[in-house]
Amino acid sequence: MTDKQPVGNTSTEAPQIGAFEANLPDTVVALTVAYEGSHFSGFARQEGQRTVQGELEKALETLYHRDILTTGAGRTDTGVHALGNVVSFGLEQAEFDARGLDKLQSSLNALVPDALVVKRIAQKPADFSARFSAKAREYRYRLYFSAAPPLFLEPYVWWIKLPTIDIPAMKAAAALFEGEHDFRSFCVAKSADLGPTTREVNKVLIFPSQHLGEQNLVVQIIGNAFLHSMVRVMVGTLMEVGMGKQPPSWISEVLEARDRQSAGQTAPAKGLTLWRVIY
Amino acid sequence: MTDKQPVGNTSTEAPQIGAFEANLPDTVVALTVAYEGSHFSGFARQEGQRTVQGELEKALETLYHRDILTTGAGRTDTGVHALGNVVSFGLEQAEFDARGLDKLQSSLNALVPDALVVKRIAQKPADFSARFSAKAREYRYRLYFSAAPPLFLEPYVWWIKLPTIDIPAMKAAAALFEGEHDFRSFCVAKSADLGPTTREVNKVLIFPSQHLGEQNLVVQIIGNAFLHSMVRVMVGTLMEVGMGKQPPSWISEVLEARDRQSAGQTAPAKGLTLWRVIY
Repeated sequence: MTDKQPVGNTSTEAPQIGAFEANLPDTVVALTVAYEGSHFSGFARQEGQRTVQGELEKALETLYHRDILTTGAGRTDTGVHALGNVVSFGLEQAEFDARGLDKLQSSLNALVPDALVVKRIAQKPADFSARFSAKAREYRYRLYFSAAPPLFLEPYVWWIKLPTIDIPAMKAAAALFEGEHDFRSFCVAKSADLGPTTREVNKVLIFPSQHLGEQNLVVQIIGNAFLHSMVRVMVGTLMEVGMGKQPPSWISEVLEARDRQSAGQTAPAKGLTLWRVIY
Repeated sequence: MTDKQPVGNTSTEAPQIGAFEANLPDTVVALTVAYEGSHFSGFARQEGQRTVQGELEKALETLYHRDILTTGAGRTDTGVHALGNVVSFGLEQAEFDARGLDKLQSSLNALVPDALVVKRIAQKPADFSARFSAKAREYRYRLYFSAAPPLFLEPYVWWIKLPTIDIPAMKAAAALFEGEHDFRSFCVAKSADLGPTTREVNKVLIFPSQHLGEQNLVVQIIGNAFLHSMVRVMVGTLMEVGMGKQPPSWISEVLEARDRQSAGQTAPAKGLTLWRVIY
């Protein structure tokens, strides 16, 4: 890790509204970015590693000849993909005026690796933060059930060597996640150290999908914010129900336990995609 | 190339019905196979290369302790994918009886590389040939239009760095392929040497698709049989129309020319998938 921090940002997970006001930039630019997670050591900048944030900041430094620190809506782990993560940064008015948004987008896309794409770009109010202004995040986790391995979906699914799974039981279990809960059982220890572990999960849907002819099962999770690895532990726990090892009602017990040991395994990173961020 | 040839098979492209009858096996097994083409040097066996047919025959030799020659419905090129290619081979009755079909399928899947999967297995009449019994083949070619590169679809599309394309013109052009035509303009020279170049194309449809959140355009082509690289030259030629370089009616001119030089470029292999074979 470097010592770089976005201006006004803090290391806590909970929003710190107001912390920015003392030090607002002239204007803020928001990028909607997609990336193939297997090409990066996660989102967050790390000295000596190829990360999404690091590559974007390197490109911004090339364009503006100074360090520009960015804030991301979702700090995805190594191997996790994104279709619509959002990254914001402040610019001085002269910097913003020197280059149109379309030009900035194409310049960034020319500078970053091919496995990372700036899909959209927008000017935002000076107090906008990709992270703290976000109302909700949507993640999608993709499961592949087959005795034989996935072919075209291999980098994007958790391959489970079972011919079938109890989908009605998984749906009943998924519904128990909805609402405001203490998700301490669903986060790795270092998150639990950081502060409050209560989050609101708005929706957990399970539906079949087909990509390039290969059937797969999607777990769609929308929530206000997520603890570290929370989606992956939720999916690993749902799988215990899908495989018949636990009844759906077990989810409530795991939530009440407030203990990572009570939940299922952490599902592999490559099945997870940060689908979109809602503002 | 080795000297191995399936019993009764010939090197010509046109069906030779009756050529098998003199030498029928006791029974025939048909495999529906899917593969990720970037892991193989094409379908057809080649000494010293990892090919789909070669890997299947190596697995069959392990199981039956003799050379078993297979016949494929589509001899796809290096890099071309398949969701439903069909491969058949003969067995003696004792060989067939010694192992159930389910067991044979799981044994083959355990022996072949992960990028190749036997999806289905079936017993067929003794005169069945995956190649010569096929009534039609369906291919799908996937195009990706964007200034920015594809991420999750990178191994499965032809990336064209244009924001848009004239889809109605492409559809009008595609319709001109339907019916029985001499496709000499759409095959590489070595195919033209092999014999007749008349083929029937039943349908060419163009429709949008979305995979893992990335928009793409599918060219779906169904025909009785295809010349070498025919689908890829058809797609390369359709792109000339889509990019506005030629009008839709140009397709008829290219068909009439009976000359590979008159057609468009050969579209890249990785955008092509042999979707299914119809019997």
